[in-house]
Amino acid sequence: MKIGRFIYQDRIVWGILDNDGIRVLGSLPFCELKVDKEIPHLGVKLLAPVQPSKIVLVGLNYKDHAQELGMPVPLEPIIFLKPPSAVVGPEEDIVYPPVVNRLDYEAELAVVIKKKCKNVKEEEVNDFILGYTCLNDVTARDLQKKDGQWTRAKSFDTFCPIGPWIETDIDPCNLKIRSYLNGKLKQNSTTANFTFSVPFLVSFISKIMTLLPGDVISTGTPPGMGEMNPGDIVEIEIEGIGILKNKVAI
Amino acid sequence: MKIGRFIYQDRIVWGILDNDGIRVLGSLPFCELKVDKEIPHLGVKLLAPVQPSKIVLVGLNYKDHAQELGMPVPLEPIIFLKPPSAVVGPEEDIVYPPVVNRLDYEAELAVVIKKKCKNVKEEEVNDFILGYTCLNDVTARDLQKKDGQWTRAKSFDTFCPIGPWIETDIDPCNLKIRSYLNGKLKQNSTTANFTFSVPFLVSFISKIMTLLPGDVISTGTPPGMGEMNPGDIVEIEIEGIGILKNKVAI
Repeated sequence: MKIGRFIYQDRIVWGILDNDGIRVLGSLPFCELKVDKEIPHLGVKLLAPVQPSKIVLVGLNYKDHAQELGMPVPLEPIIFLKPPSAVVGPEEDIVYPPVVNRLDYEAELAVVIKKKCKNVKEEEVNDFILGYTCLNDVTARDLQKKDGQWTRAKSFDTFCPIGPWIETDIDPCNLKIRSYLNGKLKQNSTTANFTFSVPFLVSFISKIMTLLPGDVISTGTPPGMGEMNPGDIVEIEIEGIGILKNKVAI
Repeated sequence: MKIGRFIYQDRIVWGILDNDGIRVLGSLPFCELKVDKEIPHLGVKLLAPVQPSKIVLVGLNYKDHAQELGMPVPLEPIIFLKPPSAVVGPEEDIVYPPVVNRLDYEAELAVVIKKKCKNVKEEEVNDFILGYTCLNDVTARDLQKKDGQWTRAKSFDTFCPIGPWIETDIDPCNLKIRSYLNGKLKQNSTTANFTFSVPFLVSFISKIMTLLPGDVISTGTPPGMGEMNPGDIVEIEIEGIGILKNKVAI
């Protein structure tokens, strides 16, 4: 099932996206889904499918990426945060800040949390996950190197495209993940190369901070991340979910 | 003026705290203040005076702290984030996580944002500030060193005590700032030792991310930060504001 967030009759609503239309929900998608009405796809503008209270990202979580960099696989996940103000939806612009000299895309599988969780065991994690979506961990590579701490480099407004929707019915353990720059394949891996699995990551993070409905955990990027420039179109494609497409603007 | 957030008749409300009582507000404190009713102080439990969408903290922002560490004064602020789930209020416990081996207090002056701001100039910053409060940047020093990135070490639930209230009428450029552990003075400096002033920091951060009402910017800690253990009482005192007091619990 694909759950999207969109504008309909000047209101922001959630809905289940089917091939032949949208079933508009009468409530948030974190509790029992109640369908209010059915409408056609036509003319609906999708928004980011989440409004997280926090976005937790994981560094260096693909074995093939660590190999590429000649780095050892980390023993524990390295986490960092993006502010909610960085979120944009599908087809929205990524704005290239004037102080940045090198801007990179990073294709990532993002987990959307369904209900409040704290100290969750790995084997119980699935009860707390609503679904999965695509995330572009946009990074000012020059500022990341300069600061040492990654926060500034990853926190500018528009640096967290998420979407196009939440897919609730996939197994995240072996999904193809790809990025394209202006249609050209750049990253091409599978989540089978994860160092830390989704259940491990959600459990690990839930032992640090209480996760709330709509919170996002992003699972790291595979090899091949690279530079974007104004005018470029970047697409993140994950098997079973879809394509998150954004343009770089000044 | 001191603005606090508290529980009154089983509801969370905001109010202006005076010597002889509390003027309960009929709305959030970010717009025009409308007083609903007056009540006595008695039996009111203060909560954290903010519910931020983000908490932005600044590393190494006291010249005397840089001197103490023998480190050069940074050329630009180094920023990091704590998640909103880390916030606790005055008199609430700081919980010592089982995976942590060394837990530190860090006394900080925190700025509370009044209205949405993006790309604000230094000379315009005051229009966007509601006031100031005390913040304890609780840090798992062992995890900070281990991870390199500071996020995990600073993001556990209860690692962001804030309060006791927001003081709206002080100038942040020369305030005494102190911390006490079990009544013993530990940190003792003044915000006159800031490397980057409040207007510079708010302007700098607003050029990265859109700041929203209630967002918090914390301005770094002076020399003398140190270890806390279960049972310890830690107090952060800032001239013109008051004392933020918390206990460390298991």
